[in-house]
Amino acid sequence: MKVLFLGDVFGKPGRLAVSHFVPKLIAAHGIDLVVANSENSAGGAGVTPESADELLACEVDLLTGGNHIWSKRELVPYLEKPGSRQLRPANYPPGSPGRGRAVIQTPDGRRLGVINLEGRVFMKTLDDPFRAAEEELAALKKEGVTAVLVDMHCEATSEKNAMGHFLDGRVSAVLGTHTHVQTADERVLPGGTAFITDVGMCGPWDSVIGVKKDLVLQRFLTQRPVGFEPARRETYLQGALVDIDEASGKARSIVRVQERLPD
Amino acid sequence: MKVLFLGDVFGKPGRLAVSHFVPKLIAAHGIDLVVANSENSAGGAGVTPESADELLACEVDLLTGGNHIWSKRELVPYLEKPGSRQLRPANYPPGSPGRGRAVIQTPDGRRLGVINLEGRVFMKTLDDPFRAAEEELAALKKEGVTAVLVDMHCEATSEKNAMGHFLDGRVSAVLGTHTHVQTADERVLPGGTAFITDVGMCGPWDSVIGVKKDLVLQRFLTQRPVGFEPARRETYLQGALVDIDEASGKARSIVRVQERLPD
Amino acid sequence: MKVLFLGDVFGKPGRLAVSHFVPKLIAAHGIDLVVANSENSAGGAGVTPESADELLACEVDLLTGGNHIWSKRELVPYLEKPGSRQLRPANYPPGSPGRGRAVIQTPDGRRLGVINLEGRVFMKTLDDPFRAAEEELAALKKEGVTAVLVDMHCEATSEKNAMGHFLDGRVSAVLGTHTHVQTADERVLPGGTAFITDVGMCGPWDSVIGVKKDLVLQRFLTQRPVGFEPARRETYLQGALVDIDEASGKARSIVRVQERLPD
Amino acid sequence: MKVLFLGDVFGKPGRLAVSHFVPKLIAAHGIDLVVANSENSAGGAGVTPESADELLACEVDLLTGGNHIWSKRELVPYLEKPGSRQLRPANYPPGSPGRGRAVIQTPDGRRLGVINLEGRVFMKTLDDPFRAAEEELAALKKEGVTAVLVDMHCEATSEKNAMGHFLDGRVSAVLGTHTHVQTADERVLPGGTAFITDVGMCGPWDSVIGVKKDLVLQRFLTQRPVGFEPARRETYLQGALVDIDEASGKARSIVRVQERLPD
Ligand SMILES: [Fe+2]
Ligand SMILES: [Fe+2]
Ligand SMILES: [Fe+2]
Ligand SMILES: [Fe+2]
Ligand SMILES: [Fe+2]
Ligand SMILES: [Fe+2]
Ligand SMILES: [Fe+2]
Ligand SMILES: [Fe+2]
Repeated sequence: MKVLFLGDVFGKPGRLAVSHFVPKLIAAHGIDLVVANSENSAGGAGVTPESADELLACEVDLLTGGNHIWSKRELVPYLEKPGSRQLRPANYPPGSPGRGRAVIQTPDGRRLGVINLEGRVFMKTLDDPFRAAEEELAALKKEGVTAVLVDMHCEATSEKNAMGHFLDGRVSAVLGTHTHVQTADERVLPGGTAFITDVGMCGPWDSVIGVKKDLVLQRFLTQRPVGFEPARRETYLQGALVDIDEASGKARSIVRVQERLPD
Repeated sequence: MKVLFLGDVFGKPGRLAVSHFVPKLIAAHGIDLVVANSENSAGGAGVTPESADELLACEVDLLTGGNHIWSKRELVPYLEKPGSRQLRPANYPPGSPGRGRAVIQTPDGRRLGVINLEGRVFMKTLDDPFRAAEEELAALKKEGVTAVLVDMHCEATSEKNAMGHFLDGRVSAVLGTHTHVQTADERVLPGGTAFITDVGMCGPWDSVIGVKKDLVLQRFLTQRPVGFEPARRETYLQGALVDIDEASGKARSIVRVQERLPD
Repeated sequence: MKVLFLGDVFGKPGRLAVSHFVPKLIAAHGIDLVVANSENSAGGAGVTPESADELLACEVDLLTGGNHIWSKRELVPYLEKPGSRQLRPANYPPGSPGRGRAVIQTPDGRRLGVINLEGRVFMKTLDDPFRAAEEELAALKKEGVTAVLVDMHCEATSEKNAMGHFLDGRVSAVLGTHTHVQTADERVLPGGTAFITDVGMCGPWDSVIGVKKDLVLQRFLTQRPVGFEPARRETYLQGALVDIDEASGKARSIVRVQERLPD
Repeated sequence: MKVLFLGDVFGKPGRLAVSHFVPKLIAAHGIDLVVANSENSAGGAGVTPESADELLACEVDLLTGGNHIWSKRELVPYLEKPGSRQLRPANYPPGSPGRGRAVIQTPDGRRLGVINLEGRVFMKTLDDPFRAAEEELAALKKEGVTAVLVDMHCEATSEKNAMGHFLDGRVSAVLGTHTHVQTADERVLPGGTAFITDVGMCGPWDSVIGVKKDLVLQRFLTQRPVGFEPARRETYLQGALVDIDEASGKARSIVRVQERLPD
């Protein structure tokens, strides 16, 4: 099973990159399923039902989230909808709206479990993502799901790498998001789990992690609040393509994806 | 001028990778100067005069540091030695031992200025690295140095990318260190500055950022202190090779380096 | 010289407490000068020209600020006005709007220097407040000012206490703000500087540091964003009364102030 | 039931203050039970079996801990001993050594439940202290315990105050520790729970939160690591005395305790 996973889709440039490249990549690589992190899909901050629907209309099968998932109030009922295809990190307190886990399937019925987690180092005071991973994984195993992809939305390289080794041999892939910068450490870990610290961002690269660079610089230089706007130029689609052996749930390979939108 | 810059050298495995690969890379690519971040060269935590000397004996011309630079007390006089080839980040308070800037030169007299900075986001409460960069750069310009390499030792991708854009067109390269994971965003920015968010680590990859993975996992799972030991397997040398036009000080190209030590 | 210093004035309840008690306290204790931290005077978040003017109309002579000082855009020109009586912390980068130091005087011409600082531990990545204190103090000494009050706006008890000892014997008082909870450690340090870790808040006590308690609890329990509103009940005025010997600039005494507004 | 609760006992000075004052206070106020936070009882950092035993020999009935509870390896078996009278915060991951809850009783059989919690804001990535409080409280209620004291070991005033309101009416007292500075906000909340943001420290006041002030200042000024030593002068015992109505479990009153050891 070939799964394309895309990093934080950032604003309109990111959505354009998805609509432009996803169909092409599906055709070129025989991709079975597409998952994307949508947490910055609405103007760079958060997700709206509209920004989520726009991505799902581009042959994306499921959306994951991160620390920005609650930015837009109108997303809460959307997360709660039966059959919602927008996840939120699993390790929010019990009773949080929405779900941190889903099972999607290919037209011919092959299933992929997806778990969405959020790290805690330098981030929020959430529930333990390691124990949350265990619980969500147990639920998926109970449903008989073999192939499992984990979106580890997280700041610190240590926490992401610890999660990779923690789940190695038990899931098909642990793929990092949140830093908006793709890392060059993709590999299949010894136990058979595909891993990358961060798949990067679908959005404008002539920026500071998606935001107009002058605005971010002003914030660093003055230490005063500055309104952020999405940048526009040098848009890339970034992610990773994982090939999973469905019988064992192990990854055969992981390849980084980095495509530049024509100007 | 071809400059090889190596990411955080981690313990004995990292030192071995440096001694094994640096002479080969110099020969293969016609490298003029080699700079390495040594902050984890002594057993994974800090630098000793011995670990620094060992690296300098491997055709490395200059060492930079980071948040671990003060871990070993015996390093302080070493930093202070006239002509010391071990830097510490420039943005420690005035009067700190050692220097955050140096000029090295090729056998035929071509000079490279090097500035070492440390980020503040999720790190220590240091002086402003942006203003420190301005000051160190002004000093180098005054000495007539055209080619300048900056080691931005930093956690957050936003702060590193902001520094890249801040210095774009004014230095030859802004190269990130500290996260121990190489990023795949190397490029020459519009103004002519080579940039990469993190060049990665010279050290064991079957680890959590250099440390034995079981120990780090234990720390995450228990939230109790656990002693760390350097891992040993799958050792890589990681860094970036920057080609600088000496007349203008602009970068012609940046290429990631990732070499695996034979087991 | 008797100086009344008031902690973070929080929203309308805080402004009411100031207008109710300040004239009474001046009369009762023969207070010469009144300084108040206004950073939460506008609806609990930030300062507006109106909220500042309202406080200054209540016989308050000078206002200090903190991390919320930039919350309202319209405050910037107000900070910049010649003779502005609203300070901002001194240790923002050079070129920041406004001033971090002022000299106020009693009707009969006795002068008090005031320095506003902001801590860095668990807060923003600002300039060093210790060196900023040195600089501002040197400027005041140059103007011949003997009596000096420092508002150390800061989260960590360690950083505030360190500042107290750092300035002990060199200023008349180091008084903490920001945590909104008054501490019971007021004393004159060995060198003659009046000190208290935090003078507390002028605002509603039946709250979580001024905010409606149910809203804050919801934020802690859900880890999702919740809009904050100022609480209303059990309003207190909190601060400290410092008696300064003008000849030496040393403090004679410090007394905590805690007055409850009648319901 | 009269309960004396003492803040972080810091090193030898703190232990001296406890041995000097506790018997006197018991006699003077008819105190029934004494609980103390011991997390800094061994040389200022952590607890040893010896430092705990020394406190328990001074008529202290139970010890609580905090973020420093794991500093000394030899404490782990001591925490695990059946009937151990040293708690650790309850909200460490399941399976952590030791217990976060205990029931102690007066000679005539009146019982007091004690719950030890650790905050997360600006601290470790622990389990949710609010849900941990619920669980421990349910267990105590099941055992028929009416009077319950909570040690909320925590940095942020917001998190401590939120816990006070969260448990108001359900426990007898929520008493803060960790900042080493006593606050002046002791009161019985509307529901009948005694509350104080921080009871303070038993230790040397001529210090920065217990540590020799010059060493802490050096750390702030240089941003380099500096070894810490406990200070020695101006030793205080600090805590709070809570009077609990055993029938209802509500607090009748809370009074701050602050006693200075003769030099
Ligand atoms: Fe993102
Ligand atoms: Fe994120
Ligand atoms: Fe580092
Ligand atoms: Fe490092
Ligand atoms: Fe504040
Ligand atoms: Fe405030
Ligand atoms: Fe403590
Ligand atoms: Fe503590």
